[in-house]
Order: sequence, then structure tokens, then C-alpha cells
Amino acid sequence: MTEVRIIGLVGLPEVRPGDDLAAQILQAAVEQQLTLEAGDVLVVTQKVVSKAEGRIVDLDDVEPGDFARQIAERWEKDARLVEVVLGESARIVRMDHGVVICETKHGLICANAGVDSSNVEKLGTVALLPDDPDASATAIRDRAAAEAGVDIAVVITDTFGRPWREGHVNFAIGVAGMAPLWDYAGAYDPAGLELKVTQMAVADELASAAELVQGKLERTPAAVVRGYDYPKGDGSLADLLRDPELDLFR
Amino acid sequence: MTEVRIIGLVGLPEVRPGDDLAAQILQAAVEQQLTLEAGDVLVVTQKVVSKAEGRIVDLDDVEPGDFARQIAERWEKDARLVEVVLGESARIVRMDHGVVICETKHGLICANAGVDSSNVEKLGTVALLPDDPDASATAIRDRAAAEAGVDIAVVITDTFGRPWREGHVNFAIGVAGMAPLWDYAGAYDPAGLELKVTQMAVADELASAAELVQGKLERTPAAVVRGYDYPKGDGSLADLLRDPELDLFR
Repeated sequence: MTEVRIIGLVGLPEVRPGDDLAAQILQAAVEQQLTLEAGDVLVVTQKVVSKAEGRIVDLDDVEPGDFARQIAERWEKDARLVEVVLGESARIVRMDHGVVICETKHGLICANAGVDSSNVEKLGTVALLPDDPDASATAIRDRAAAEAGVDIAVVITDTFGRPWREGHVNFAIGVAGMAPLWDYAGAYDPAGLELKVTQMAVADELASAAELVQGKLERTPAAVVRGYDYPKGDGSLADLLRDPELDLFR
Repeated sequence: MTEVRIIGLVGLPEVRPGDDLAAQILQAAVEQQLTLEAGDVLVVTQKVVSKAEGRIVDLDDVEPGDFARQIAERWEKDARLVEVVLGESARIVRMDHGVVICETKHGLICANAGVDSSNVEKLGTVALLPDDPDASATAIRDRAAAEAGVDIAVVITDTFGRPWREGHVNFAIGVAGMAPLWDYAGAYDPAGLELKVTQMAVADELASAAELVQGKLERTPAAVVRGYDYPKGDGSLADLLRDPELDLFR
């Protein structure tokens, strides 16, 4: 029987800037008597990573510029929040219906450049995406190897909306210890036809799977996916980002 | 411990037009000694549904029109395949780089209107999306209730690409016995802030999770997700489709 298990890690403390998140995650696993195994995928939501890395901004410290003020006035937003969003953006992809779709410095395309005011400990503060989510994933992976002695993959996630479809889903924004794409190039279907759709974004599918045990209320910011034979390799977020030249929805 | 299990259903026969797919799936579960339980989500790939429903077209029977011939010549495609894609489309969203992004009659936006030439039994034939994927899901759900005596949810899936990101992921294209969106409206995060991102597309996340045990070579066309407390209700694909008026990427 082919089976994949998705196990939520509970009992993490409220994460604060400077905290040792890797240690907190490893400790949470120990406390719920979950022994990490080689080949596990540890999926961690961006919010706790951002908090541990101090990627929190107090809006009282932000002085919005004229452009941020104009946008805020038109759409009844907080001009300080808009200023932070613009600061995190390399490019604006769309701006309409009160929604700002940004390309972040990492090359991610998402609403508000991933800046989020929910699930932060203090009202009036917002969380930015990690500066380098692949590095965040690698740091956790390395600690798991050093302290628990296991070779695991790590995926950092965030929830984004999608064109055309309602609802958000979890996406991978950083990976370590695996290739994020499963490549079927050269594989044949049972009828002998070579598969033309050659790549599945399995890191995104792992992110979505983990969200099923995490929920949005941030009480389960990490999950272990066990039994999935992920593609080996040294992957990165960049592997998941389409070449702008080939994108039809820039 | 919060745990969700994803169990692949193996041993289904090659599905042919007119086959009783629900019976085949229920039989496969019995054969691998998996007893369906109330609250399970049965995730079924579109391809076997389309085959059972006879949604297979032999390209030898297709006479391409002038528009299909022009597109085919420009991008070195099979004009008969292009003709089938156009026939399944209500609207063309984008057409460039040899890619045709269509809006299907169901309101789905995807490449080639979901017409697929892989994993069909006979070379030179293509599979269309089910005519009414919600009805396909409902039929399977009703049979599970009648024959196995269990109240389950059913999700029909297909793999689509996405703007901006490499790789395909599994999406829900039909649902029965559940609401496809988890609505957090009125929920508060631990800091007391009302959640603004109010909906998660959990049917799409279930689809992605199931793909982890299904793979692309179509040997595991169905999977059971167990332990996920899905939102109850009578949902449909329409719930997952964004109002065109509010969409920024039409």
C-alpha cells in the first residue's frame, strides 16, 4: 500500500525575534514523541521563520511616501502598510480592486509582497517574508542533521491566492535537501507515449498537503510529511519560478 | 497528534468507456483491505473518470477547421488536436509561445482546455475533461454510500500549470459531499486580530496531497485522504472559480 502521512507538530511556543526556531521545532518533535527519520520532509510556515529572523515591522516606525498615501487613500488601506509592501516589492504586477499583486525581491508573485498582519503577536506590527527562504530552510535542515542525526528535506511555505480560483493554498517559498520539481522527462505512460507534461511542482504539493494539518490559526506551524520519496537534489526556490520570458501573465 | 493519512488505491484495471468506475474503485479498496470510513475523502484523477464516461476522441475522426490549421502550422502542433481543444473552449485566455490557455465550458482556466493525449490506452486518441465533474464526483459518492454504507467526500482532480511558477500541481475540478473552501470569516488569530484572508481552497490542497501518492504515470488513479476534518456542505466546482469581474488575470 502506498501511504504518505502528514503529522502536525504541536506545542511550539510563541516564536519571538532571535529565537532558535530549529531547536524549538526539534524539541516539539521530541515532546510529542515523534522521532524524525531520514527522508522526512519538514514543512514550516513562513510566519514562524519570519518571527525568529526578526522580520517584523512596527507600523508606528514607518513613514509612508506619497505613492503609498495615494494608494491607501483610494482603497482605504493603512498607508504605512502600503509603504512596507512597496518596500518589499521589486515590481508591481497588477494593482486593481484594492489588491496589489507584487513581485518580491525573491521573484515570488503574490498579493502584498507577502507582507501579513495576521498571526503576529502584537497588533500594529506586520511580518515580512524571510530574507532568503532557501537559507532559512537550509539552516533548519542542517540543525536536524547535526542534532537529530537525520537527513531530511525542509520546505518553507506561505499561503497565496491564485488567478482564476477562489481561496488561498500553501506554496513553497524555500526548500532545502530536495529538488522541488519531479521531472518525468523521458518517462512513458502505459500506452508507450512519452509524457509531455514533464514536471510536477511537488514542493508546492507538499506545502498544500501540510496545510491540511496546520490550518490558518497558526497553532501548528510545522508538519512532518513521512513516506514520500521526494526527488533528491539541492533545489531552491529559483527552480520553481518561471522564466519571465516564457510567462503569459506578467 | 494531528495526523492526516494519504493512502493510494492500487490495482484498478485499465478503465474503458462504459466501465463502472465507482464499482472498480470500491473493489480496489476491498482488495487492498482498506475499509472506507465516514469522513474519508476519495480523490480520483480526471483521466479515469473521463475514460469511464467515454470522453475519449480518436483524432482520426476529427476534421480541423481553418483556425485550428493556422495555429497548428505556426506552433508545429497536430491540427486535429487543436480543433478538439478549441471545441472544448468557451474562450481563449492567452495564446503564445505555443501554449493555448483556455477557459473551458466549466469555467476552468487551463492549458489546452484540459485535453490530454497522455495516459490514454490507444495512441492517437485524446481524453477530454468530464462533462460535469461535480456530477461525476456525486455519482461515486452516492455509490459509496449505497454499497459501502459510508458518507465520504469525493474530489475529482486534474493537473494544471500555474502562472509564474514552474511545474504542474493537482487541482480540484469537481467535488461532492464537502465545501471546497474553508472559511475563516469571523475567526481570530492568537493576537486577537480578525483574519482577513478568510478562505483556504482545501479541495485544491486535498488534490495536491493525493498527487503525492498518485504520481503522473497513472498507476494509482485514486487515493483516500483519512483524518482530515473537511468543511461540510454541498459544494461544487463553481465555489472554486473566481468571479470574472474580480479577476486581475483574465
